[in-house]
Amino acid sequence: MASRINVGVLGLGRLGRVYASNLAHRVPGARLLAVADTHAEIAEAFAKEFDVPRWYGNHHDVFADKQVDAVAVLTPTSTHKEVVIGAAESGKAIFCEKPIAMSVEDAREMLTAVEKAGVFFQPGFQRRFDSGYIAAMKQMEAGVIGTPVVLTSTSRDPFRPSLEFCDPKVSGGLIADMGIHDFDIARMYMGGIKSVYAVGGTLAYPEMKSIGDIDNAIISLVFRTGTLGAVHLSRNAVFGYDIRAEIWGTKGSLQIGYYRQTPILVMTKAGISHDVVPYFMERFESAYLAQIQNFVDTLLRGGEPAVSGIDAVEAIRVSHAATRSFQEQRIVYLETE
Amino acid sequence: MASRINVGVLGLGRLGRVYASNLAHRVPGARLLAVADTHAEIAEAFAKEFDVPRWYGNHHDVFADKQVDAVAVLTPTSTHKEVVIGAAESGKAIFCEKPIAMSVEDAREMLTAVEKAGVFFQPGFQRRFDSGYIAAMKQMEAGVIGTPVVLTSTSRDPFRPSLEFCDPKVSGGLIADMGIHDFDIARMYMGGIKSVYAVGGTLAYPEMKSIGDIDNAIISLVFRTGTLGAVHLSRNAVFGYDIRAEIWGTKGSLQIGYYRQTPILVMTKAGISHDVVPYFMERFESAYLAQIQNFVDTLLRGGEPAVSGIDAVEAIRVSHAATRSFQEQRIVYLETE
Amino acid sequence: MASRINVGVLGLGRLGRVYASNLAHRVPGARLLAVADTHAEIAEAFAKEFDVPRWYGNHHDVFADKQVDAVAVLTPTSTHKEVVIGAAESGKAIFCEKPIAMSVEDAREMLTAVEKAGVFFQPGFQRRFDSGYIAAMKQMEAGVIGTPVVLTSTSRDPFRPSLEFCDPKVSGGLIADMGIHDFDIARMYMGGIKSVYAVGGTLAYPEMKSIGDIDNAIISLVFRTGTLGAVHLSRNAVFGYDIRAEIWGTKGSLQIGYYRQTPILVMTKAGISHDVVPYFMERFESAYLAQIQNFVDTLLRGGEPAVSGIDAVEAIRVSHAATRSFQEQRIVYLETE
Amino acid sequence: MASRINVGVLGLGRLGRVYASNLAHRVPGARLLAVADTHAEIAEAFAKEFDVPRWYGNHHDVFADKQVDAVAVLTPTSTHKEVVIGAAESGKAIFCEKPIAMSVEDAREMLTAVEKAGVFFQPGFQRRFDSGYIAAMKQMEAGVIGTPVVLTSTSRDPFRPSLEFCDPKVSGGLIADMGIHDFDIARMYMGGIKSVYAVGGTLAYPEMKSIGDIDNAIISLVFRTGTLGAVHLSRNAVFGYDIRAEIWGTKGSLQIGYYRQTPILVMTKAGISHDVVPYFMERFESAYLAQIQNFVDTLLRGGEPAVSGIDAVEAIRVSHAATRSFQEQRIVYLETE
Repeated sequence: MASRINVGVLGLGRLGRVYASNLAHRVPGARLLAVADTHAEIAEAFAKEFDVPRWYGNHHDVFADKQVDAVAVLTPTSTHKEVVIGAAESGKAIFCEKPIAMSVEDAREMLTAVEKAGVFFQPGFQRRFDSGYIAAMKQMEAGVIGTPVVLTSTSRDPFRPSLEFCDPKVSGGLIADMGIHDFDIARMYMGGIKSVYAVGGTLAYPEMKSIGDIDNAIISLVFRTGTLGAVHLSRNAVFGYDIRAEIWGTKGSLQIGYYRQTPILVMTKAGISHDVVPYFMERFESAYLAQIQNFVDTLLRGGEPAVSGIDAVEAIRVSHAATRSFQEQRIVYLETE
Repeated sequence: MASRINVGVLGLGRLGRVYASNLAHRVPGARLLAVADTHAEIAEAFAKEFDVPRWYGNHHDVFADKQVDAVAVLTPTSTHKEVVIGAAESGKAIFCEKPIAMSVEDAREMLTAVEKAGVFFQPGFQRRFDSGYIAAMKQMEAGVIGTPVVLTSTSRDPFRPSLEFCDPKVSGGLIADMGIHDFDIARMYMGGIKSVYAVGGTLAYPEMKSIGDIDNAIISLVFRTGTLGAVHLSRNAVFGYDIRAEIWGTKGSLQIGYYRQTPILVMTKAGISHDVVPYFMERFESAYLAQIQNFVDTLLRGGEPAVSGIDAVEAIRVSHAATRSFQEQRIVYLETE
Repeated sequence: MASRINVGVLGLGRLGRVYASNLAHRVPGARLLAVADTHAEIAEAFAKEFDVPRWYGNHHDVFADKQVDAVAVLTPTSTHKEVVIGAAESGKAIFCEKPIAMSVEDAREMLTAVEKAGVFFQPGFQRRFDSGYIAAMKQMEAGVIGTPVVLTSTSRDPFRPSLEFCDPKVSGGLIADMGIHDFDIARMYMGGIKSVYAVGGTLAYPEMKSIGDIDNAIISLVFRTGTLGAVHLSRNAVFGYDIRAEIWGTKGSLQIGYYRQTPILVMTKAGISHDVVPYFMERFESAYLAQIQNFVDTLLRGGEPAVSGIDAVEAIRVSHAATRSFQEQRIVYLETE
Repeated sequence: MASRINVGVLGLGRLGRVYASNLAHRVPGARLLAVADTHAEIAEAFAKEFDVPRWYGNHHDVFADKQVDAVAVLTPTSTHKEVVIGAAESGKAIFCEKPIAMSVEDAREMLTAVEKAGVFFQPGFQRRFDSGYIAAMKQMEAGVIGTPVVLTSTSRDPFRPSLEFCDPKVSGGLIADMGIHDFDIARMYMGGIKSVYAVGGTLAYPEMKSIGDIDNAIISLVFRTGTLGAVHLSRNAVFGYDIRAEIWGTKGSLQIGYYRQTPILVMTKAGISHDVVPYFMERFESAYLAQIQNFVDTLLRGGEPAVSGIDAVEAIRVSHAATRSFQEQRIVYLETE
């Protein structure tokens, strides 16, 4: 490819705008050539604000744009399949936000299309690009904690998203929507998952029962190697955004995560207090940037994507197995990857 | 009773000596009148060192000593049943270290004997007397975190005890031996437990397979109210003693525990580092003292024991159910308490 | 002014490149129209890399460029006087990195030129734009700590810069070079300074004696109101970059600063450890961006500069008084501002 | 001496009771044989509560008691001279709480009497027996921070003691009363002090002006070796007890101290908060015990006192020099020790 990648961003929702503004300014090697949104006026307004040369009201026009080398897919999950297959058939390199599909079957169809077209495909799991998660991997690989034997991964939102957003028909439900990051991280550090058991409940927001979703869950994991894991999910960490992982080995442990946002402590008769990282935009700002930079860098210098299509499929497969475990109140065993 | 309780300590192992030396000096309202150990020379040596007036080579002599008002039972778990029933029949007030018995049936027999004799009986769960666990209960009762919905309780030892000690025939196995504290705490904060599911493995110390025990386990809990819990147990927190709990509510969360031991940070090119609380003696020194002080105080001023016989039975029952869940690889549902 | 400010950056050294790349991409409302460096090839290379339309080999050409609305002065301190006066006479709005001059006299001449020309002038003190320092000011203004009575401000570098850089003839010496930020912050929180007393020494890097500079100093402050302060300066915080402040009031205290960089703890038999913020680029990345954004925003919407010329002069005046105090081993009293 | 030291405690004020109850129960090798207080009824009540065999209404009776081997002097500072000299002349080993005298001259007279009588004498500086301060000394001696070059020592009380207590005629004033611990620690880590400069003010409690004392002070130190120090003193750390020290070396730094008391974090929308060590009893409970244990141990096994008479004199001498520096607003140079 050329010395600079021309990228088109598809979908300008909250996360789409993060990717687009990163690509507009902060990613050496990338040129944000086009943005598209089914609300064309949103695409136009964004293009004008950020000096993006071209804007479109649908992704087909981006696919038809010969100068676009790569697309970043930030459209709703339910559209991913059609968009990714279309992009692949147009020969574009593809970055696709997680989850890449609503079902394992759809995801596999997408990978087949990608493979057939021979295009570069990288699913989005920004947690893998966070400095804490990266540092933990390096420490593990350096043998600092010996053999890893237990993993704990935690994701707690500071509030309940809208009922529309939480609706399992759209989000896949709490365990799939939030847990997919934890399952991906779990696989990254510990390898394949053999069985899952999930408990959950609608405990903090009774109104979620109307959409058939839960707000808290704990999922036990047994990895193929016999090591153990637990995933904690919640929508009611009301003080802030609680993203953590612990990896326990035979010679030590790694604890990933932090709470404090502003570098100030307030000390009064009420005690010592500090504020907390509010939400994922603040927590993962650098990781989102590093992730898309990595996508562009790999396109430029060649090589395999840092996250594979298999990773994307497996994270969906585990999250669906865990959801089923909760629904059917039983241990679910996964077939070998 | 009198203005001062005459106490006899039965069993002068590691923990027995902690109780005896606390009672010798640091518990206003108590007088350590007698110590007993089946190794009479240990009892004698201790008595001389700590100015204890009487020492015995067996507990029967303590039961026969009319001036002894109360006994603290620190003998091996396998002897608890016989000792406690004997103490009850002698009319002594009884403090008995956890677990009070090797089986739920034994424990119930003991409580029946206690009830029949009409003596005061308090099982030992020192974690309930730790300032952090107490403060958390006060915060919960004050409504600071709203309705509690999820609990996590962690117990990680810094090393593997001897194989003799770990032997499930003596210790009951990892889940019962270590987890009993976590199950007790879980009940204290969240109420009765409906189902448990345990995963575990011999992951850090392969030699434990020879005695049929595991070194790591994670137990999922569903409480009767539908709220959720997880218990993390390990023998390989090689850096120190890892005792924590998190309680998550609809309005906030409480995190109990701490790692740092010595009040010093070392800052060099290698980073910033500190040491860690090494083991249970250091972590719970104050709690052990507060617990036996509470026992003596309640005897003096009257009232119900701070921890009940039911609490002791239930903690055993849950820990055995969790052990069974691990062994049989299935969810175990508990009958109503 | 227009809806977008055309900015020229003068000087593309380490800090100049930070400002220029921020202005190139990350400051809504700014357009980086030109860069200049006396090494023209540096200016050209930067312009090409960052799509800057114009580059120059000297600042006079920038002054002559009618389309440049504002300049950011990042040239060596010894050139600030001539550059700022030239920019003022050309009618440019001016941002000038600290210290604005080598002497109080020069600084005052510069302010006179600025005033005469009627141009906007803002000196650079990025610490004022750090989220911790800002939050502290808000807490103080909200009365959280009552009346402030004592301030401590700390600046410790992780290593000694080159002897060329440290040379007091260039840097002004440790107390002026590093302390100017602390004196500025001290004035911001506590008001004018009445007297200073400095102790110092060449204690960690004996080779600094060859250039006549010290590597550690402590400066006591008495403010005009009678409140107290201390400034700690060092070149040997070998583990990382140590920037802190404490403000003590009648009702509480605020502690500004943090050490930890990567969100991971490493827990092994050696203890618990974490890494540290390495240097000022990492510590103040956001503050440098916020500062230049503030400059641009104020130009666009009108109003007084967030930091005044008087602030710049006073910080120099105090740092020189403190240097004199150290050299003459006496308390130095400052005239009223 | 014998295998057990018979100790008499003189003075049963707040701190006297800490020593007496430690000696009654918690110091192997010691036997609390007698307590004395000029309020004889206090001595009697204490003796009955703690089973102390003998009580007296004045120290002369303790001196006359041939079975008393050693005395702990906890009477008011103004009486120390007469009490210590009397104890020395009676041949008792002596522990004397800091400051040992109101003036350097008195202190030297006492040491002369001690030397003449040939008795063991140990002044009280409990901070030297705190695990953090001890660990720091070990790290320094192990070379972990290279050559120490700067020390900061902080003592902040959570409130103003009574005006009677603070009265400089009784307490010596803030700098002597609180700072003596910091000056002692400074000497311990860094060696002799060459010059001091103190700034201070009555800033938080205007009513202290009526007794002529201040409530905040900062003292700059230059050590004989040319290294630097700062001591921070305050009466208004309203959130808790703030005892810290930092030692900065050429290869790293040590930070001594901690704030958190109860092992619990409270996390709500208001942020994350914890409580604070309230006061010196809690902060130094273990250190007071370790100190008197050390006194008894050294008596039993022979050897020099862990803290010398010279240490006691020098801490007074520096604290008086610093007080004079504040009063006369000048740098005070100390003669060689």
